[in-house]
Amino acid sequence: MSNKRFLLVRRPKGTPVPEDFAFVSEPIPSPAAGSITVRNHYASLDPAQRGWMDDAPSYMPPIGLGEPVRATTVGRVHASANKDFAAGDWVLGLNGIEEYSLVAPGGFTAKIDVAKVPSPSYFLSALGAVGLTAYFGLLEDGKPQRGETVLVSAAAGAVGSIVGQIAKIKGCRTIGIAGGERKCKRLITDYGFDVDIDYRGKSMRELSAEIAAAAPGGVNVVFENVGGDVLDAALMNLAPKARIVLCGLISEYNAPEGKAGARNLWQLIVKQATMRGFLIRDYVPRFAEGGAQIAEWIGQKRLRVDEHVVAGIDNAYAAFMLLFSGGNDGKLILKIA
Amino acid sequence: MSNKRFLLVRRPKGTPVPEDFAFVSEPIPSPAAGSITVRNHYASLDPAQRGWMDDAPSYMPPIGLGEPVRATTVGRVHASANKDFAAGDWVLGLNGIEEYSLVAPGGFTAKIDVAKVPSPSYFLSALGAVGLTAYFGLLEDGKPQRGETVLVSAAAGAVGSIVGQIAKIKGCRTIGIAGGERKCKRLITDYGFDVDIDYRGKSMRELSAEIAAAAPGGVNVVFENVGGDVLDAALMNLAPKARIVLCGLISEYNAPEGKAGARNLWQLIVKQATMRGFLIRDYVPRFAEGGAQIAEWIGQKRLRVDEHVVAGIDNAYAAFMLLFSGGNDGKLILKIA
Repeated sequence: MSNKRFLLVRRPKGTPVPEDFAFVSEPIPSPAAGSITVRNHYASLDPAQRGWMDDAPSYMPPIGLGEPVRATTVGRVHASANKDFAAGDWVLGLNGIEEYSLVAPGGFTAKIDVAKVPSPSYFLSALGAVGLTAYFGLLEDGKPQRGETVLVSAAAGAVGSIVGQIAKIKGCRTIGIAGGERKCKRLITDYGFDVDIDYRGKSMRELSAEIAAAAPGGVNVVFENVGGDVLDAALMNLAPKARIVLCGLISEYNAPEGKAGARNLWQLIVKQATMRGFLIRDYVPRFAEGGAQIAEWIGQKRLRVDEHVVAGIDNAYAAFMLLFSGGNDGKLILKIA
Repeated sequence: MSNKRFLLVRRPKGTPVPEDFAFVSEPIPSPAAGSITVRNHYASLDPAQRGWMDDAPSYMPPIGLGEPVRATTVGRVHASANKDFAAGDWVLGLNGIEEYSLVAPGGFTAKIDVAKVPSPSYFLSALGAVGLTAYFGLLEDGKPQRGETVLVSAAAGAVGSIVGQIAKIKGCRTIGIAGGERKCKRLITDYGFDVDIDYRGKSMRELSAEIAAAAPGGVNVVFENVGGDVLDAALMNLAPKARIVLCGLISEYNAPEGKAGARNLWQLIVKQATMRGFLIRDYVPRFAEGGAQIAEWIGQKRLRVDEHVVAGIDNAYAAFMLLFSGGNDGKLILKIA
C-alpha cells in the first residue's frame, strides 16, 4: 500500500504546464502522537490554488516546491493518534492532492456529518467554501436590496451560479455573464437568471453596451469572479454607490506580466462605489449559520447546486486546467477514492 | 466692458492641446429675475476637470462643446436680481473659467465670509474641496487608527499634502510618494512625512520594494491620487483589511485607451482590503464641521496649506497643464481678477 501524491515541483510561469507537477508514491504516513492520517476521498479544485503556486504575498504561504498541491479535501480517518478522531470518521480539512494526508494537531480539520447530504463531496460545494462564499460574499459584502440589479460574472460557475440564485431569492434582478451559448442557456434554465450575456468574442465596449442595455439604471451589486475586460465592462455600468464583491480574477491568474489590468477604476470615483476583496476565512465562525440556510434552500428546491466530478488522482492536472478553459459545469471536484 | 471666456471647443484625445480650447469675448450677461452675475476672482484648477471634458458616464454631465470650462470659482456679485445676494457679496460656486458668470436660481452658489482668511482663494484650497476632500476622505473612508501607516500618492500635491498632515495629527506614520527630489524634500520639511519616496524613473517592482522597506508590516491606509504603477505598487504592500481611498487617478486621465490599468487587484482579495471611490459631494452637509476643524489646525500652525496661483485668464491652458506635469506646488488656482 502506498500514497500517491500530486506535487508542485516548479512554479508555473503563466498557464501551468504538466512539467510543473510530478507524481510520487510514498509509504502511507503513520500518525505521531496527536496527529491523524486521512484517506482523502474528494479534493476541491479552485482558482485560488493557482495563486498559491506563485511566490507572492498572500493570505497563506505559497505551496512549497516538492509539496503536494494544497487543497481542501473530504476524507475518512485512516489511522488516529488523537483522542478526538477515530478511524472511519469523515473529516474536512485543508490538506493536499494526495491519497493520504498526515494532519498534525491543530491542522485545519473538522469532523463532518455526511448522513444528511447526497454525497460527502457536498462539503466541498454547496456546504463548503463555494456555497459559503456565495452566501456571505453576496449578502454581507454585496448587501443586495430587494429590487436591485445584481451582475454576476462566471455566472455558470460553482460560486456564480449560487450567487445568482441567492440574489433571486432575495428579490433582485440578475444578470449573468458566461462563456458560450450552452452555458448562457443554463444561466436561464438552471439558475434562473433574468438576463444572460455571452462574453465570448466581444470587446470590452461591446460587453459594456450589452450590460447597459440589460441594466439602463446601472448595476447595484457586481459579484466579480473574472477580472480583465469583464470587470472593466461592469465598471462602466455601476449605479451610484454600487458594491463590487471581488471574489476572483480568474482571467488574470495565468498572465502575471502580460495582463491588461482594470482600466476603468475611475468609475469607482464617479459612482462613489466600493470594491472589496472577499475571503471566506473571515466567516468561519458563521459557517454553521450559512450552511443551515443553504441546506434549507436546497431542501426547498429553491437552490440548485451542480458538481463536476473528475475521477482519479492521475487526472489532477487535466481536471485543474478545466477551471481556466471554462470546461467545468458546476463545482469542480477531484475524486480520489 | 466685455466677458472673456475660456471655452471647450473639442473633446481632448488624451492630453489636452491648446486647439481643444478657445477664448471668446462676449458682453457681460445681465441677470434675469432670480439670477445673479458674478465677477470671478479665482478659479480652481483640478484633475477632475479633465474628466468633465470627456463624453463618459460621470457624476455630472460632460462640459458641453462651446461652453466655458467648468470650474469652482470665488468672486463677487456684480449684479443681482435675487434678494438673497447684493452687489459686492463674496460668493463661491460651480461656474466656469470666465470673467463673469451668470448664475441661475438654484445654481450652486453660496455666500462666503472672507474676513477671517488670508485670501478669498482659501475657499478653493484649505477651506474648499481640496481641504475637505483630504479631511473627509482620509478620516471617513480611510479610518486611520493611531499607530497605523498611511501611504499617500501625489503627496506634495494639494490634497496629498493635507492628507499627510492630518494623518500625522491623528498619530499615524506617513509615507509620501512624489515626483522629483525637490518635492520629496518638501514632503519631509514642509508636510512632516516620516518617509518620502520618489517614483520617478522607477519600475512598479522597484517602487513596491521601496514601500515594503518603509512599511514591512504593510500599509493600513492608502490615499490614492495617481493610479497606474503607483497604485499597483501600493496594492503589493497592503496590510490585512487595508482601506484604499480612491480619490484620483491622474496618471490615467490623459491615456484613455493606452493606459495600463491596475494589475494587482488580486491583492484586494488576499488582504481582504477595500477600495472606495471618494467624491466630496456626499459631505456637503458636513462642510461647516470640516472647515472649522481645518481652520483651527491652521490657526494652531499644525496644518500648512500651500497655494500655487497663476495670474491671468489668458494663462488658463498652461496653468491647467501644470496638473499633469507635476509643475504646481500646492493647490493650483487661476487668478482671474
